Amino acid sequence: MTETLVSSASREVRIGFNCPFVIIGERINPTGRKILAAEMSKGDYSRVEADALAQVEAGAHMLDVNAGIPLADEPAILAEAVKLVQSVTDVPLSIDSSIVAALESGLSVYEGKALVNSVTGEEERLESVLPLVAKHGAAVVAISNDETGISEDPDVRFEVAKKIVQRAADHGIPAGDVVVDPLVMPIGAINTAGKQVMHIVRRLREELKVNTTCGASNVSFGLPNRNGINSAFLTMAIGAGLTSAITNPLHSEVMQAVLGADVMMGNDPDCSNWIRKYREPAAEGEARGRGGRRRRRRAN
Amino acid sequence: MTETLVSSASREVRIGFNCPFVIIGERINPTGRKILAAEMSKGDYSRVEADALAQVEAGAHMLDVNAGIPLADEPAILAEAVKLVQSVTDVPLSIDSSIVAALESGLSVYEGKALVNSVTGEEERLESVLPLVAKHGAAVVAISNDETGISEDPDVRFEVAKKIVQRAADHGIPAGDVVVDPLVMPIGAINTAGKQVMHIVRRLREELKVNTTCGASNVSFGLPNRNGINSAFLTMAIGAGLTSAITNPLHSEVMQAVLGADVMMGNDPDCSNWIRKYREPAAEGEARGRGGRRRRRRAN
Repeated sequence: MTETLVSSASREVRIGFNCPFVIIGERINPTGRKILAAEMSKGDYSRVEADALAQVEAGAHMLDVNAGIPLADEPAILAEAVKLVQSVTDVPLSIDSSIVAALESGLSVYEGKALVNSVTGEEERLESVLPLVAKHGAAVVAISNDETGISEDPDVRFEVAKKIVQRAADHGIPAGDVVVDPLVMPIGAINTAGKQVMHIVRRLREELKVNTTCGASNVSFGLPNRNGINSAFLTMAIGAGLTSAITNPLHSEVMQAVLGADVMMGNDPDCSNWIRKYREPAAEGEARGRGGRRRRRRAN
Repeated sequence: MTETLVSSASREVRIGFNCPFVIIGERINPTGRKILAAEMSKGDYSRVEADALAQVEAGAHMLDVNAGIPLADEPAILAEAVKLVQSVTDVPLSIDSSIVAALESGLSVYEGKALVNSVTGEEERLESVLPLVAKHGAAVVAISNDETGISEDPDVRFEVAKKIVQRAADHGIPAGDVVVDPLVMPIGAINTAGKQVMHIVRRLREELKVNTTCGASNVSFGLPNRNGINSAFLTMAIGAGLTSAITNPLHSEVMQAVLGADVMMGNDPDCSNWIRKYREPAAEGEARGRGGRRRRRRAN
């Protein structure tokens, strides 16, 4: 059974077919967050710290750290952010940048085995990112697009993923350290996007035997009640074999979907995580409320 | 592609692989509802009428009608309930009894093509229920247990389903008119129950090519936040191929899971059902609230 082991200085997390689903918190990312971007540029990481703590508190198993700020010194800022987050939490990190120098800078200060986010099937990316991943003994997110863009055909995306896994092996990186992102399209625009992802995730699991991840919220772009769509997507994708996602653990509906999916997959022994979560004092009033309503209805 | 067509006097509903998921409202059932049982015994169907209307309003595509009241004249009461429900709604019905005479009585007054709930793989049931289904040109729910009980091995349950489908064919009932209930165990007691159901549902769809249904809420028996578990179960089972369920449409979380699953399966063209539901006036304030929170967070 494929397992991707990532770690901080003191904690290991396993992404795997028979493991609870791994949530990689997406919040530490200045894209579209002007205040965060301005603060990070000035060396103020107080919001990064707060976001790190809040996401771990909400149940994130790993945190994605991105410092993509236009015109800023991204390598320096990413390294600072990585150091800061590692000083306040013990979850493993996903070091996220489209700039190879920033990935290198983040990796150079990282304690443990990181997840590098990401490499694509583009020749130039393969040959610049994979050596770095190999050098640091990291794991890597493989995004299934290449020079020709993102294919709408999931079987083409599967072939791109296969190419990346093979190339990683050439660099000494085992398939178990490649976590494939099959790319999730907005289902409001492409109605087959859900079936596409289920199809490719099943193939990735059964044929390529690799772990998978995705940016889960893209699927609901443009639709109302996005958390409802995101929850349906994650639950169904986990059923098809998805083993991790980069998403927002602060959305309780999404967290519930993931915990429920763990129960369904048999990856929450004795349902103990579920029971702990939904019997905790804060939730009990709610549970009683629901139970009360049900009882009233049952008794007419 | 397999489709099971059921109908009332004026409306057809299709259960099928490429159709929106069919919700069969479970509320008209005196089991565990003392007041309803007492009223039905006395010939008072006002609560039956209210439950019928409320479930259709909430989105049920069909309604299950059960009159299982100990010591009562079940055939007469079931027939009255069927007539009453057909007089106030136009959705097709599932006529639900463990007593063959009650099924016959319900079928004799039913207008349209009903779903008979249910036959099992027990010899005596096969030979008493299937002739009735054939005579009335109905469809039938096939529960995958037999004289030996309910196997914990989903492949044994698959074989029971296969036997029922074959026997139905002997009685002139096509496989498309047999809707298999793979039997859902409480996952709090049997942690593999979820994987079992996904496995058998996939086999039923791919090998036997039949539609499927189940009593969805059994899966969460004994656990807190049952709607959360039921939602995860339904979403994942729909991803595996489940095409209908007998459940409570009054639970908005469960309805949301089903509508979200329709979107994911590509069975809600242009996401129009989803958009209509979650943009309706009552939901708009909520949607704005969410949007507002999201915007605030995005802008920090």
